[in-house]
Amino acid sequence: MINQEMFQLGAEPSAIRELFAYGLERKAQIGEDKVFDFSIGNPSVPAPEVVSEVIRELLEVPPCELHGYSPAAGIQSVREAVARYVEKTFGVKATAAKVYMTAGAAGALAISIAAVTCPGDEVIVISPYFPEYRTWICASGCECLEVPALTPSFQPDIEALDAAIGEKTAAVIVNSPNNPVGCVYTEESVSALAALLRKKEEELGRPIYLISDEPYRQITYGAVVPSFPAHYDRTIICYSYSKALSLPGERIGFIYVNDAAPDATEVFTAVAGAGRALGYVCAPVLLQRVVERCIDVPSDVEAYRENRKLLTGGLAALGYEFVEPDGAFYLWVRALEEDAQAFSDRAKEYELLLVPSDSFGVGGWVRVSYCVSADVIQNAMPAFKALKESYSA
Amino acid sequence: MINQEMFQLGAEPSAIRELFAYGLERKAQIGEDKVFDFSIGNPSVPAPEVVSEVIRELLEVPPCELHGYSPAAGIQSVREAVARYVEKTFGVKATAAKVYMTAGAAGALAISIAAVTCPGDEVIVISPYFPEYRTWICASGCECLEVPALTPSFQPDIEALDAAIGEKTAAVIVNSPNNPVGCVYTEESVSALAALLRKKEEELGRPIYLISDEPYRQITYGAVVPSFPAHYDRTIICYSYSKALSLPGERIGFIYVNDAAPDATEVFTAVAGAGRALGYVCAPVLLQRVVERCIDVPSDVEAYRENRKLLTGGLAALGYEFVEPDGAFYLWVRALEEDAQAFSDRAKEYELLLVPSDSFGVGGWVRVSYCVSADVIQNAMPAFKALKESYSA
Repeated sequence: MINQEMFQLGAEPSAIRELFAYGLERKAQIGEDKVFDFSIGNPSVPAPEVVSEVIRELLEVPPCELHGYSPAAGIQSVREAVARYVEKTFGVKATAAKVYMTAGAAGALAISIAAVTCPGDEVIVISPYFPEYRTWICASGCECLEVPALTPSFQPDIEALDAAIGEKTAAVIVNSPNNPVGCVYTEESVSALAALLRKKEEELGRPIYLISDEPYRQITYGAVVPSFPAHYDRTIICYSYSKALSLPGERIGFIYVNDAAPDATEVFTAVAGAGRALGYVCAPVLLQRVVERCIDVPSDVEAYRENRKLLTGGLAALGYEFVEPDGAFYLWVRALEEDAQAFSDRAKEYELLLVPSDSFGVGGWVRVSYCVSADVIQNAMPAFKALKESYSA
Repeated sequence: MINQEMFQLGAEPSAIRELFAYGLERKAQIGEDKVFDFSIGNPSVPAPEVVSEVIRELLEVPPCELHGYSPAAGIQSVREAVARYVEKTFGVKATAAKVYMTAGAAGALAISIAAVTCPGDEVIVISPYFPEYRTWICASGCECLEVPALTPSFQPDIEALDAAIGEKTAAVIVNSPNNPVGCVYTEESVSALAALLRKKEEELGRPIYLISDEPYRQITYGAVVPSFPAHYDRTIICYSYSKALSLPGERIGFIYVNDAAPDATEVFTAVAGAGRALGYVCAPVLLQRVVERCIDVPSDVEAYRENRKLLTGGLAALGYEFVEPDGAFYLWVRALEEDAQAFSDRAKEYELLLVPSDSFGVGGWVRVSYCVSADVIQNAMPAFKALKESYSA
């Protein structure tokens, strides 16, 4: 009599989490340095030193004030700091009244989807896509519609989106820099997508929300990340400090409802309601204050840049095919057989943990997370070589 | 086209939060010390000093390890510490495998309700009750059925529950020590409720879960709080450190699915699935580790005990009627007219902020939160006197 949907979600952990758990077990068996774990997006770059300094300073604030409830949307001064960050980063006019602090991007997405959809609606994702989008879309009683990205650019396929968006479309989720591919949407893509959504809104006579999941915005290797809210009014930004400040376990992020949206106030109100319904009383307050004080701290991408060079150089020399990543810390590598799961299983025999692309909604690839220490990449090269050779034997 | 249910939840903040917001505004207008804010359950006792010490020590842990993702259910050693606490506190055999760390009791309740109900089910609450129960029950597509407590004891009314529990009943939510009344359920009540649920399970041929919301377990004034899991196998404990360690804004707590439940593993799996569906990746990790290290730190109830004495003594002398509280930090006071909202409104004229009982599902009372500084209580007495006199005029 328990909820079977919830049971299934609990019984089938994500492929990423499963591989990660296997890795921990395997390391215990054969030694930490013998397993090449490229499964999870747990940053290998430590949080900036200033984070610890700020926490130490905050401990001087009287505890009742420091640890007390904040308003549901967040501490006012934190929301104001975020609004200024949004203005600077996205080039739009932003007010604190449209900032809602969340427990990371996951909380932000679950809340945003619940706020702007009704059961029976469709939400469009661009495949390959982060698998939990489907979980949250289904939890809101909606259908998850996958529209494949263009290959090999992995930019959004505007024609395919044009065909897919219909009467039931409540929202489109985008993710640039992209997990799992690492691509960054171009200004042209963003502009074309915005134009399409405006056209569709008019044609269909209903609002269509663009939910932009941007935890990797600050992790890029030279690419400029265009601003969705500057192009499209009904944009909802879901941001996280998990990757930008390397605080994934602390669960801190925000929702920004574009002030320019004609129904921004209504959307924000629904966001606040969804936060309540899902049991989020407020985002963790100590971390809210850390964000306020560290909001302009740049992400340290140098280690990821080095890893990217090591990994792409090494795999190119071995003859692997992959998408050159512009951002995030994932390499999207062509599997050496059609069945990505079978390829991932064979890689395991060489102690290489690579996430099969099936979990991201497409076949034939694996995701290699390079937010690891450089040693892991270097030491894994013989295993990648042996894996490659096993297919030519 | 946004979700109207979510919009309504956002547009109608809880009466408690509304009064709290009014209080902040009013204090800014006429001065902090002129407003007697008894609206919210924000602990006035600071977090124990050891919490800050532990956080300072934790900052010596390498940041990637300290702030990284934990497994969804929590850090293993934290879960083990909680299991030991559960064994000691509840007198049952508890394993870490049935402990799921959460973002406070609110997260724990939203997840537990989603895990053990299906849309269309009924969940029973005992009125007066914490108003967000209804929000989370409705969010899971279920109906919230109110069964009034006995008066004046405010113990559960076993006969009324017997009549209310039917084919659609998935769960009963209990809360002892109780918010808003402050009563603690007796051993007899707990035993009788457990016997009733067992009888009903057999009669109806369906499991009935007892969801026990226990954030105030450690805040008592001599009363012994009976153990629900020792009496009833299908118990799910929702616990929080908001009140016990005065960390309400940090959002840390846990779910414990009683190991003795015949379907404990299935329920736990559904809990994990519901956590995923609601967007909780893991409970804030820094706070998980704080809990591990502070799990045996007793709550400091002395200030609340003093407040309780001051408040009950003062109001008794003025001729107010109230329920003598055994735990928590709320006093349930009879309104001086039938309409609790009108009484609360009149109290406002004397700068007294008292939450009308309507929001807790019953008429005719107000909730007075005495987790304030003793000064507020002392200084409020002339206002309580004037309010009383305004009704005899």
